[in-house]
Amino acid sequence: MKSEIITVGNELLSGATLDTNSAYLAEKLSEFGILVSRRTSVPDGVEPIAEAVEEAWRRVALILTTGGLGPTSDDVTKKALARALGKPLVLHEEILKKVEERFRRRGEKMPLVNQNQALLPSGAKWFVNNYGTAPGILIEDGNKRLIALPGVPREMKGIFEEGVIPYLRDVFGAAPPVIRRKLRTTGLAESALYEKIRRVIPEGGGLHFAFLPSYYGVDLRLEVSGREKEEAEKLLEEKLSKIRPLLGDFLYAEGEVSMEQVVGRLLLAAQKKLAAAESCTGGLVAKRITDVPGSSDYFERGVVTYANEAKHQLLGVPQKLFKTVGAVSPEVVERMAKGVRRLAKVDIGIGVTGIAGPGGGSAGKPVGLTFIALSDRKKVWVEKFIFSGDREINRLRGSQAALNMVRLYLLGKLK
Amino acid sequence: MKSEIITVGNELLSGATLDTNSAYLAEKLSEFGILVSRRTSVPDGVEPIAEAVEEAWRRVALILTTGGLGPTSDDVTKKALARALGKPLVLHEEILKKVEERFRRRGEKMPLVNQNQALLPSGAKWFVNNYGTAPGILIEDGNKRLIALPGVPREMKGIFEEGVIPYLRDVFGAAPPVIRRKLRTTGLAESALYEKIRRVIPEGGGLHFAFLPSYYGVDLRLEVSGREKEEAEKLLEEKLSKIRPLLGDFLYAEGEVSMEQVVGRLLLAAQKKLAAAESCTGGLVAKRITDVPGSSDYFERGVVTYANEAKHQLLGVPQKLFKTVGAVSPEVVERMAKGVRRLAKVDIGIGVTGIAGPGGGSAGKPVGLTFIALSDRKKVWVEKFIFSGDREINRLRGSQAALNMVRLYLLGKLK
Repeated sequence: MKSEIITVGNELLSGATLDTNSAYLAEKLSEFGILVSRRTSVPDGVEPIAEAVEEAWRRVALILTTGGLGPTSDDVTKKALARALGKPLVLHEEILKKVEERFRRRGEKMPLVNQNQALLPSGAKWFVNNYGTAPGILIEDGNKRLIALPGVPREMKGIFEEGVIPYLRDVFGAAPPVIRRKLRTTGLAESALYEKIRRVIPEGGGLHFAFLPSYYGVDLRLEVSGREKEEAEKLLEEKLSKIRPLLGDFLYAEGEVSMEQVVGRLLLAAQKKLAAAESCTGGLVAKRITDVPGSSDYFERGVVTYANEAKHQLLGVPQKLFKTVGAVSPEVVERMAKGVRRLAKVDIGIGVTGIAGPGGGSAGKPVGLTFIALSDRKKVWVEKFIFSGDREINRLRGSQAALNMVRLYLLGKLK
Repeated sequence: MKSEIITVGNELLSGATLDTNSAYLAEKLSEFGILVSRRTSVPDGVEPIAEAVEEAWRRVALILTTGGLGPTSDDVTKKALARALGKPLVLHEEILKKVEERFRRRGEKMPLVNQNQALLPSGAKWFVNNYGTAPGILIEDGNKRLIALPGVPREMKGIFEEGVIPYLRDVFGAAPPVIRRKLRTTGLAESALYEKIRRVIPEGGGLHFAFLPSYYGVDLRLEVSGREKEEAEKLLEEKLSKIRPLLGDFLYAEGEVSMEQVVGRLLLAAQKKLAAAESCTGGLVAKRITDVPGSSDYFERGVVTYANEAKHQLLGVPQKLFKTVGAVSPEVVERMAKGVRRLAKVDIGIGVTGIAGPGGGSAGKPVGLTFIALSDRKKVWVEKFIFSGDREINRLRGSQAALNMVRLYLLGKLK
């Protein structure tokens, strides 16, 4: 079963925006055994969209489009579909009412331009959009199908998950899926990870490996296609049981689970509370911890002590340390972790200080130098890192390393 | 001048890899006034690549491809070019020597499979690859041109910058570029923004508008192509001078400037220092402020007072307020802003409290309800918002609204 994805938008052709929508759709479609045989991006124009749709309509039985469904004059996908498939636009009162209601709920009057949202190519069905005003569109013609979705990722994903997936399940339910597993590691470079697991990597039998590096670490993805679900899962489990012991403590999660979720679950299980004192990460550690719903059960507070005065006043870091060893030092980070733990009266305090860059580096203390400390009621652990990225990357890596220290501590693995 | 980009690789169609190459190329091409009229991604196969190349060759005068130039059996772009353009592959001794030398320098013997690197479609020229073994390929045929580059971003960019740019400069040097301007607004929905500026929108004369909504607001992009630089800039300035007054205070920046940068510049100019007390945004406001290098000059500290006890102890919020009006209330956020300003001894304090979701909402206080306060030495301003997103979106919108309050305050526009 082959499909094509057409994404619409000048911003996709000017290089201003990455096309993340089609990557998302391709991954989701593969779960129904649907291969994407071509992806096309075209500008906001009736001609180019219509041309791309006509071509794809000749080649494959399923087309997905994203973008160009907004109410304004640069959104012309519906006009293009009408022309390409010879189906004039028809006003749907039902959609109009829904859009008006959406504005009414926010206490606003619907701007007139939103009437356009209620126009669909004749004979088309539609998917409810719970995240915006443009409905998804479904056109069925013999064994050919076209699904048009908005370009805003959240709306596109919402409609896809709530409307399109149930539809695809009805139509293509029986296809053998692609089964995937993901192992998430941190603290190892891609090549080092590869060396560790090389001997169990050999592929074949529909099994495929992928290394997906990011600033949080390297994810290892295993994928089996072309097999029945049970058989595929058995094959994956066999491989995983060989790989896990080789990864040891570098493995922090399996599947779509983040480090902050892992830390949250461990804190809840241990019934311990955490507080954080951050300098270079500037609130990113607190932000990531509180990204997790329910984090108020284990995260008491964070302080972003950017100024030395704040480190002294709030956390009790002695002023003289800033002169003798400097704010980016094991001595200061140790006091930060201890200080925030005492201030918040919690079980665990973490402290992060470093030089994120671009300025502030020196020969002795280069950009990327970061100290992280964890303090409990009995002891303090301090670790030193030298990250080699830019400001943003150093901050991301610092936050990941800090959360990983909490994880290792809660597992009794902090040395 | 129109061009198309074709990217080759199964990983681009499975959703495993984002197509960053074509975004890079599109942006670079626009500097030569070359518009990308279509982007296509096809899998690693002679048929699909050849088909896409044949089609594009009919439509435009310049094609760029990336990917499929490696030495292994799944790299078939050259075979596809040979078939599509009727130019059989020819071995180039000169390239072979360069590849062998590359291996020799690393003290290795060239694996035989790398001989493939020396094969080019007949009549093709090539660009040196200083970052890998696959040279870039240039095919010229009348006024038609095709440039094939490797898919590894570093190699692709290296060849493009060192070889392709000088070539394009020779060939298209005089072409008028695409000139862009961006106006960034916050606090207005896309349709409301459209209504505001509708009467000055009419396009034509090479001028094009685009609305780019995100959780931070809506960006308005103006673009002029096909005109001389000076003329284009004059046309843009004329339009901008009409649009700016219509946007008023909703306009927070022009160009690639973020809200946190705007706030930073205003704070520096006013020589004022800021501190932040966050509940629902959990450190995101502090994180965004400190994303800006040099922010230590105006950001003294942030506190993430997630627990009520922390709001009381650090910020002096009276305990009884949590019972009478609750932590998410104008009364509490006012004390948070005042409290953090006094604690940090700075000019401006901001406080954010709200219900980010998914839990914690009620009929009277729904998920998305957010209060933001700004306190200076004389006065406190409190604003109420009801955001309609999920946890992540509510937090992003809350951080943007908080920073926007600081901006409006510093501009003397806070009512």
